[in-house]
Amino acid sequence: MGANWVPGRWGTKREVEISDPRTRAFARQHLGEPKASSQPALRGVQPSGFVDRDIDRLFPSIQVSVDDEERARHSRGMSYLDYLVWRSDLVIDAPDAVLFPSDHEQVLQILRVCSKEGIVVVPVGGGTSVTGAITADWQAAASIVISTRYLNQVFDVDVESGIAHVGSGVTGPQLESHIADVGWTLGHFPQSWEQASIGGFIAARSSGQSSSGYGRIEDMLLGARVATPVGTWDVGGFAAASSGPDLRHLVLGSEGSLGVVTSAHLRLRPRPSIREYAAAVLPGDFDRAIKVLRHLAQSSMRPTVVRASDSAETEALLTMSMPGGLAGSAFSAYLRFRSALPGSLLIVGWEGTRAADVAAARAHAREVLAGAVWLGGGPGRSWERGRFHGPHLRDALMDEGYLVETFETVTRWSNVDALHASVRRAAFEALGDGSYVMAHISHTYDTGASLYFTVLAGGWSDPMASTARWLAAKAQITDAIVAGGGAVSHHHGVGRDHRAWLPQQVGPIGMNVLGSVKSSVDPSGVMNPGALL
Amino acid sequence: MGANWVPGRWGTKREVEISDPRTRAFARQHLGEPKASSQPALRGVQPSGFVDRDIDRLFPSIQVSVDDEERARHSRGMSYLDYLVWRSDLVIDAPDAVLFPSDHEQVLQILRVCSKEGIVVVPVGGGTSVTGAITADWQAAASIVISTRYLNQVFDVDVESGIAHVGSGVTGPQLESHIADVGWTLGHFPQSWEQASIGGFIAARSSGQSSSGYGRIEDMLLGARVATPVGTWDVGGFAAASSGPDLRHLVLGSEGSLGVVTSAHLRLRPRPSIREYAAAVLPGDFDRAIKVLRHLAQSSMRPTVVRASDSAETEALLTMSMPGGLAGSAFSAYLRFRSALPGSLLIVGWEGTRAADVAAARAHAREVLAGAVWLGGGPGRSWERGRFHGPHLRDALMDEGYLVETFETVTRWSNVDALHASVRRAAFEALGDGSYVMAHISHTYDTGASLYFTVLAGGWSDPMASTARWLAAKAQITDAIVAGGGAVSHHHGVGRDHRAWLPQQVGPIGMNVLGSVKSSVDPSGVMNPGALL
Repeated sequence: MGANWVPGRWGTKREVEISDPRTRAFARQHLGEPKASSQPALRGVQPSGFVDRDIDRLFPSIQVSVDDEERARHSRGMSYLDYLVWRSDLVIDAPDAVLFPSDHEQVLQILRVCSKEGIVVVPVGGGTSVTGAITADWQAAASIVISTRYLNQVFDVDVESGIAHVGSGVTGPQLESHIADVGWTLGHFPQSWEQASIGGFIAARSSGQSSSGYGRIEDMLLGARVATPVGTWDVGGFAAASSGPDLRHLVLGSEGSLGVVTSAHLRLRPRPSIREYAAAVLPGDFDRAIKVLRHLAQSSMRPTVVRASDSAETEALLTMSMPGGLAGSAFSAYLRFRSALPGSLLIVGWEGTRAADVAAARAHAREVLAGAVWLGGGPGRSWERGRFHGPHLRDALMDEGYLVETFETVTRWSNVDALHASVRRAAFEALGDGSYVMAHISHTYDTGASLYFTVLAGGWSDPMASTARWLAAKAQITDAIVAGGGAVSHHHGVGRDHRAWLPQQVGPIGMNVLGSVKSSVDPSGVMNPGALL
Repeated sequence: MGANWVPGRWGTKREVEISDPRTRAFARQHLGEPKASSQPALRGVQPSGFVDRDIDRLFPSIQVSVDDEERARHSRGMSYLDYLVWRSDLVIDAPDAVLFPSDHEQVLQILRVCSKEGIVVVPVGGGTSVTGAITADWQAAASIVISTRYLNQVFDVDVESGIAHVGSGVTGPQLESHIADVGWTLGHFPQSWEQASIGGFIAARSSGQSSSGYGRIEDMLLGARVATPVGTWDVGGFAAASSGPDLRHLVLGSEGSLGVVTSAHLRLRPRPSIREYAAAVLPGDFDRAIKVLRHLAQSSMRPTVVRASDSAETEALLTMSMPGGLAGSAFSAYLRFRSALPGSLLIVGWEGTRAADVAAARAHAREVLAGAVWLGGGPGRSWERGRFHGPHLRDALMDEGYLVETFETVTRWSNVDALHASVRRAAFEALGDGSYVMAHISHTYDTGASLYFTVLAGGWSDPMASTARWLAAKAQITDAIVAGGGAVSHHHGVGRDHRAWLPQQVGPIGMNVLGSVKSSVDPSGVMNPGALL
């Protein structure tokens, strides 16, 4: 959670707004007239249940804040529902205190106390969860947030093995800038990259935009140190091993329910000196793009970045500056290549350290993507520049009263087209007239692919009514995802918002196993109760 | 466990023996004179504790055998220690019965009964464990083996998604022959491939000789169905997901301690039409080879197979037909290229479906491997032909009274050379004069590599004395592995032989977590007690 926090907005960045008249026209055409929403603000905070002598008694020598703003900013994540709260008249419910431990031992000390006293603990890194993973029921019990802000050391970089040992509070940009000098990259660029922390990546089992080339966070996590209420738990440590079950995979995706990840050993990759991103339109329906992406994913030379938008998203991206959009350069491309529409906008990127390798991969992709109309490098570079801008545009759209949210899933290749169609239908049915549903594939695997949906709907200025509307729609949509053979989540996580659907995916024995693991390391049940389990 | 079982031997294959006079000379030179050992045989079996009416009462409608030979052959794995038992005068201890369920429901039924009655259950697939994973203490309690022999259906191949749904008893060759027709391969070729089963691969978290190209079994396992004493447990199902912790990784490496894997969904890869394997000698010490392999592993174009032998193994492979050896064609290469010695024998293989891709990968590797003396395609093909022959040669060497065993580990790149040296020293100290210790790297990752050791020692014909000798040596060696920063196992597993060292790697909280997971699915503790935990 960066220093430039403002309530109910992704950040202070102002350059991405609905300033482009084409974007405004697109929104009006599809969503209706804007209805000015109340601005997000910190209107009031429930008082802390702690008084100074509690703090002195419970957490001597730990940096603690009971300041209203500090508690409020650590009270919730960055989902559409979280954001609506800041636009409402509600008094913000918040943890009783925010603690800023400076090392692993202090985290252990805090957890021992909280476990003994029955104080709920929610670990917060960048605070960018979009699944309610850090939006606890703060009124239910005495509660604190552990901020990993000062667990932000880069302890060591083993440049021979390509392993960085870092504190869990290190953010994406902090890590990249530190290891750039020694020629490495983590290669993990989720849209939350600018603000999210390493610990958050691990806890939410995240996946970045370059996952086709660099893999997911679980492919990068060599080992993690976890502070739990019962002590220090080190998992992993080896590139691969057959020393029994791999307990890294219990920590990955644990969402603070087992403990606090305090540091991690991360696999690095040589920093690419060559980075090329190209855009193309593949004429035809989405199924054609799915087939082409499948061939690319099942081949031996995958691009680093692969993304394909359905025809609705393609239209949006080519005509306005949307999340991941191409803005001006794309619009001129659109004018030149509109004969290729309806079609799928593709973004394909190659990164590497050797020109010959990149050239071979590019030649391979161009051959597999035969039939695509290439738009030149301009739109590719636009995508790169705008790759973290989506959430800022959401701020701007919410200012005009529009509903804007995303959700995502993953399924096997043979089911991608059918799932896309059924979820799209469910979203339309749930949101009704004046909604716009679009999707893309941005993570591909040998056996399947992600589906990432963005929904827009318009004309609601009342935050409470919008909350009720989205809760109902989200339930219908998630039902459709699970019924259609999709995972509860591909990379956002479970949190509180998807919790009701997890048992359908994991089954009763799996839920019991998860419960037994939790009981083993968190016998008092103080770790982020309500998230995941 | 195939139909052509013979007691105490890997198989009936006879073509690989110490028939080559160079091999015999090498063994005599380094290990001393052979001492004719007793031949392995089934000399006697402890009687079953079950009588017919027990069987009828406990397991109606299940195929059950209490036959002495059937019980004996399912009583132990294929480690050196297991094999010595067959050469001793011991009466073989064995399970009370071997059950052959025909489907998942029958396995569930068996487990319910055994859990209720406190009957120990050991699941056995190919029976090729080399860590004592299936060598239970059969005298300790009533016990059965569940053979997965008839869980050998290929249920479905999703040719679009590249996913095979198979029974856990399917062996490597059975699967490959089934999916070859539709253009796919699993790409998993551990040395046990000819006999081991899919369920065994999963339970032991195995890794094959082509892991650099195709990954490990955990990279291939999309999902598994597990029969547990408390019911059916389905794990996974998606290429990747962030729906909480990934419970596949509890089943992978669980070694029968949680339940019986009855079927799996496996990721396939396009079957390569091009397969090239080349051999080279890289002059210099092992550290030079380590550096070169590291560069290859950290590059964007990895070969499918990468292997590098230390100088001791290089000498052995080039002069005699050893496990993974090159026999005749290599010897002539040796004569031509011995100026490159001492050095490291490299095997590098490329597989693919497109000539241009393979050519690009080959060109890349040749550039990274600058300085290597290439031996031509003959030795590469020899390696491919002999890649599953190692265990047969062990049979032959044991016939001459030699000790022959392997062990393995994994560590980060910056520690590979030091760990190789310290483990090699420990093995020499443990085995004394007349021993030969050699090693290779055959699995490489971004951050580290495996080390696979073969030890030979000679001149002991008494199986019981040999057992005591190896137990003591193995303990010293494993101490050195763990002290030197290596994993307890890279791909053989933990079983009973490595169990004492697991807590050092996993820690007390990790062990508690594993215990809580086991209690959750196996509350009576009947599943393979003593293995892993």
